[in-house]
Amino acid sequence: MTKIISVNAGSSSLKFQLFEMPEETVLTSGIVEKIGFEDAIFTIKVNGEKVKKVLPIPDHTKAVSLLLEALVEYKIVESLDEIKGAGHRAVHGGEIFKESVPVTDEVVEQFSSLNELAPLHNPAGLIGYNAFKENLPHCKHAFVFDTAFHQTMPQESYIYALPIRYYNDYKIRRYGFHGTSHKYVSQRCAELMEKPLEDTKIITCHLGNGASITAVDGGKSINTSMGFTPLAGVMMGTRCGDIDPAIVTYIMKKEGLSIEEVNDVMNKQSGMLGVSGISSDARDIEDGFKEGNPAAILTTEVYVNRVINTVGGYYAQLGGADAIVFTGGIGENDTNIRKLICNRLKDAFGIVLDEEINSCSRGKEILLSKPESKIQVWLIPTNEELMIARDTYRLIGE
Amino acid sequence: MTKIISVNAGSSSLKFQLFEMPEETVLTSGIVEKIGFEDAIFTIKVNGEKVKKVLPIPDHTKAVSLLLEALVEYKIVESLDEIKGAGHRAVHGGEIFKESVPVTDEVVEQFSSLNELAPLHNPAGLIGYNAFKENLPHCKHAFVFDTAFHQTMPQESYIYALPIRYYNDYKIRRYGFHGTSHKYVSQRCAELMEKPLEDTKIITCHLGNGASITAVDGGKSINTSMGFTPLAGVMMGTRCGDIDPAIVTYIMKKEGLSIEEVNDVMNKQSGMLGVSGISSDARDIEDGFKEGNPAAILTTEVYVNRVINTVGGYYAQLGGADAIVFTGGIGENDTNIRKLICNRLKDAFGIVLDEEINSCSRGKEILLSKPESKIQVWLIPTNEELMIARDTYRLIGE
Repeated sequence: MTKIISVNAGSSSLKFQLFEMPEETVLTSGIVEKIGFEDAIFTIKVNGEKVKKVLPIPDHTKAVSLLLEALVEYKIVESLDEIKGAGHRAVHGGEIFKESVPVTDEVVEQFSSLNELAPLHNPAGLIGYNAFKENLPHCKHAFVFDTAFHQTMPQESYIYALPIRYYNDYKIRRYGFHGTSHKYVSQRCAELMEKPLEDTKIITCHLGNGASITAVDGGKSINTSMGFTPLAGVMMGTRCGDIDPAIVTYIMKKEGLSIEEVNDVMNKQSGMLGVSGISSDARDIEDGFKEGNPAAILTTEVYVNRVINTVGGYYAQLGGADAIVFTGGIGENDTNIRKLICNRLKDAFGIVLDEEINSCSRGKEILLSKPESKIQVWLIPTNEELMIARDTYRLIGE
Repeated sequence: MTKIISVNAGSSSLKFQLFEMPEETVLTSGIVEKIGFEDAIFTIKVNGEKVKKVLPIPDHTKAVSLLLEALVEYKIVESLDEIKGAGHRAVHGGEIFKESVPVTDEVVEQFSSLNELAPLHNPAGLIGYNAFKENLPHCKHAFVFDTAFHQTMPQESYIYALPIRYYNDYKIRRYGFHGTSHKYVSQRCAELMEKPLEDTKIITCHLGNGASITAVDGGKSINTSMGFTPLAGVMMGTRCGDIDPAIVTYIMKKEGLSIEEVNDVMNKQSGMLGVSGISSDARDIEDGFKEGNPAAILTTEVYVNRVINTVGGYYAQLGGADAIVFTGGIGENDTNIRKLICNRLKDAFGIVLDEEINSCSRGKEILLSKPESKIQVWLIPTNEELMIARDTYRLIGE
């Protein structure tokens, strides 16, 4: 019995999912929120039911000991020794980590050296790792990076047209994120199409609160819309995506904003929230669109515009495409956005959406296009936790 | 005899071309450079030969009187009264000017109100206008805007995913530039294809030291790669084009740069110059590429990557394309870049370049694609001066 726990630690949260491997059975999942507060929230699934507790949780180490105790208490495991591996979502692997790795002291050191590239995310990943290491001393660990899948990108995609010393000295380049998700859905898509992965050209649209689109050629990322940071690319819930870079300094000057303030505008006040003035939640925008709210309609139109332009660009770079995949919260559930995107791609690429199937499909694997569609359109729910568990299981060699 | 002069005034320069209308015959052309200096340079074509003088020219008014005297002296005109109209390149028309206009006091006032959007270019346009008005009091004037052609863009293309108040309060939106060029070559392309302009979908690539790509649907711009400023879009000679906007503040912080300094980096130290470290001139990059210089090869690859992604995006937004047009200094002369771009678009869009014709075609109207190509590829030298003269001739009603 090999149990593997997938861990996604944030600065004040910790998500987990426990798998039985190699069967890939989900034994439980849960989340600890508001770590560091008196009213932290611990939620865990027991026999399909959510159990929720509000209590003081001072730090991640305490959060982990709490969740491990719960695993035993609720008889999800008999003994913690059954957990042979913990896989940690590690956001930024820079150019150092081109794939998932077992964690060693050297790895920790290298990973920490990348903190500057992901000042919020990388330290949190390390805190999560340390908390598990302390509580489960026998367990083996792996880091699974959000950036690793995109390390196959060619230079033409990742070099910015800036002075080359910024790349040489500061490693400013396109990294891309959501790699674990893009990898999972592209592999799954090839399986569903019953084609060898090497022979596929797939455009994966991970559309969630954060959003990125990737061109996957033969299973390898060759371009992706997020960039040096997760701000770039298509419009998101509160992020602006690509804009004329001159706007950044124009706004700073016009409003006397500091670097931190303008970053806050672009990361937290823009995107769907900024254009609509209504909400950063696509569900609210979808409702507004259907009610004929002009701000929601505009927001939707801008969103679709950015997606179709990115998809078209990747179609060109890939030299065609066999499939487009929708995943992420919006990609999996927003039937309206999917319809608008696919219909706008009909004339150019011969995409024919099955509107009936699309309109009633949420959160499950299904082919959304009609047989005559020149490119298949798939809805594939992402599963980053499973990818992390798979890589961890493979790397710990059990 | 109606003569029209096309004028393109910079802060220290003034380019002109004199036409006989409606025949569109070019009578002469020339340029005054280093205005304000003791060693200003005045060049004018006389009977096909360039005549060049170095002399002190304190201001634009003096520059204009000099060139007008030369027109009489060299018998290019018998009397200055023959010049019925002067058309002035006016860079930024904001949302006010959706087409060329005869100049009135109100127009001058409105145009001046846009100075903040184009602090370098708009004042120069006005200086040029005033210099001609003073010297040719009988003549009628028109403004022809770089932005006007793009005013047909739908909101989905021109609204940024920023807080909407930036559009409402400061008019921060995509404007696009090179409009006169994109308009000229798209119209000319429809003529050459012998198709009604209304029935064409054309992607125009104006690739010069500045570069922009436009999606033209039925003669109307529906999207273009330059944005709020001419910094955005594809990579250029010294401009970075689109980058992750978070890089702007990252560099500022990392190097302690001011707003002006980081703008200087993005506008003057980036692009081909920045990536290659060799030159901002595409001819030097082309030479380096052919010699196998790795920096020149990388620069070329990044350049082609940005172009094909943009073209692919517009192909999607247009719902297909009948033709791609190359124009501008690079588009008209860089046979290598054209070949690389077209060959990368072969698999996706069925473009088949006639490599033999391409390799020996520079600066002349010619079909570059083979008959079996699914999209025609045209080389069409741009002629902004003629467009300005045409609009001016039409507007002054002679």
